[in-house]
Amino acid sequence: MSVIVVGTVAFDQIATPFGKSDKIVGGAASYISLAASFLTEMEVNLVSIIGDDFPLSFLEQLKSRGIRQEGLQIIKGEKSFFWSGEYHYDMNSRDTLDTQLNVLEDFNPVLPASYQGCEFLMLGNLDPSVQLSVIEQLVERPKLIILDTMNFWMDIALDKLKEVISRIDVLTINDEEARQLTGEYSLVKAAKEILNMGPSSLVIKKGENGALLFQGDQMFFAPALPLEDVKDPTGAGDTFAGGFVGYLAKTGDTSFDNMKRAVIVGSAMASFTVEEFGTEGLLKLDEAKIDKRLQKFVDLMDTGMLLSQQ
Amino acid sequence: MSVIVVGTVAFDQIATPFGKSDKIVGGAASYISLAASFLTEMEVNLVSIIGDDFPLSFLEQLKSRGIRQEGLQIIKGEKSFFWSGEYHYDMNSRDTLDTQLNVLEDFNPVLPASYQGCEFLMLGNLDPSVQLSVIEQLVERPKLIILDTMNFWMDIALDKLKEVISRIDVLTINDEEARQLTGEYSLVKAAKEILNMGPSSLVIKKGENGALLFQGDQMFFAPALPLEDVKDPTGAGDTFAGGFVGYLAKTGDTSFDNMKRAVIVGSAMASFTVEEFGTEGLLKLDEAKIDKRLQKFVDLMDTGMLLSQQ
Repeated sequence: MSVIVVGTVAFDQIATPFGKSDKIVGGAASYISLAASFLTEMEVNLVSIIGDDFPLSFLEQLKSRGIRQEGLQIIKGEKSFFWSGEYHYDMNSRDTLDTQLNVLEDFNPVLPASYQGCEFLMLGNLDPSVQLSVIEQLVERPKLIILDTMNFWMDIALDKLKEVISRIDVLTINDEEARQLTGEYSLVKAAKEILNMGPSSLVIKKGENGALLFQGDQMFFAPALPLEDVKDPTGAGDTFAGGFVGYLAKTGDTSFDNMKRAVIVGSAMASFTVEEFGTEGLLKLDEAKIDKRLQKFVDLMDTGMLLSQQ
Repeated sequence: MSVIVVGTVAFDQIATPFGKSDKIVGGAASYISLAASFLTEMEVNLVSIIGDDFPLSFLEQLKSRGIRQEGLQIIKGEKSFFWSGEYHYDMNSRDTLDTQLNVLEDFNPVLPASYQGCEFLMLGNLDPSVQLSVIEQLVERPKLIILDTMNFWMDIALDKLKEVISRIDVLTINDEEARQLTGEYSLVKAAKEILNMGPSSLVIKKGENGALLFQGDQMFFAPALPLEDVKDPTGAGDTFAGGFVGYLAKTGDTSFDNMKRAVIVGSAMASFTVEEFGTEGLLKLDEAKIDKRLQKFVDLMDTGMLLSQQ
């Protein structure tokens, strides 16, 4: 199955209580496509925009992982999107220190003809108008459209965001965003309301506190793996989305039971990202490491036997 | 198997963003013994202290649930312990508005002879000196000693607390307390250090974000059940402890696999407490409700089949 990944490829500069990064490569689509590339042998088709200040070496790394870049616009004489932020001690909250939109200001993606017919569309966090434009450029509706977004778009483009949400299958947002989107404090109530907005499935990401999957009246919880060292949470949610869509694309199975597994795979992939700054954790990966990490999740969640058998 | 429960039986007055209570019955030992009484048909032996202002009707309710009160001191002419607090919107933090120690000021429990020979000792949150005194009064060491405590005792009686911790089998504390006790932010590192202080098992409670069980190099995670309505988190941790020890006492099995189940049972019991003010959620319980709730946990945690089978 082929996947289209839409999102930013960008520069980040990050400070956490445990260290500081230089200006390094980041962006939602970088994390998503890298994570997905480890889970599926099918095509991962990137849609994004960068300036000519972006390191070709990183594009080569993406290429070596089979990530197609026909949909990546490189704008001569312009700069790539840049974000700088600082995390607080608890790593769950952060302050934005600087945002330079640069090429993102006029991002108007044109989908390459070769991307048509894709089965999975992963819309990373971006202006909802851009996300909508990609949906509308696809001649045939993909089997599954997954959308990630954030509170920023709820603040400034709620109507457009709701329009996109009405046209997708799976929404992934964090707990505070689910509360903001619905005005409901209870995540159970918020989930019900969001599932009434269009998506058939919802993933509420809770960072180090795991993720909840909702579909109809069903609910599943996958923990995050408690780690010895967390260096940088940037890109964890994007990596989760990449692992999630990558696993669904690999298996071609979008049932609730398989989405449960996809949530666990997404959590496992995200655990690698937070252990290093930027994309370093992902770039060092191989299948053996992923299998070993997945086994840790199995152990963490293994109830021994069903309670009802007691 | 018989259980001894040591802790406060007291009055609480609680305000949350979702309501306010009058002066109602609370206290760690009330929640623990009630929760445990639903899980074990064995004796639950209470050790606590109250003034003569305490409602006999509540003592009757405990009695009707088989909770023995020979170790409950009633001090004539004195008042019961009183705590008043206000929860913030996220329900994870609270301010103490008033604390009146009253009878607790001179609590020096004398263990009834009939309590000797108990197999499970559950030490609810109290002055570590009182907890230690109970351990020392037991002629024969119980099969399992479980200790609950809080940051307050780390602030004012750390050495005594560490002495108690060195003599128990299972410590239950929340995530912030685990960090304070060890100076480690990572819960994995904090757990390692705590397991070096004496206990063979550790439960780190994360409120609405579930609970982690540590034993040796093994780690298990049990989620909290996402609920439509949370009215009052007071007593949730105590109820968890009561369900945990009650299940272990019922089964008589203190293996890691059975402790996993005990953590899930504790989480299930706590979910009833937070749905109502005070002990109301527990007092309305019956076995059918508990079984139904446990099934919700099984569904929430059911991975369908092992990931490794994919």
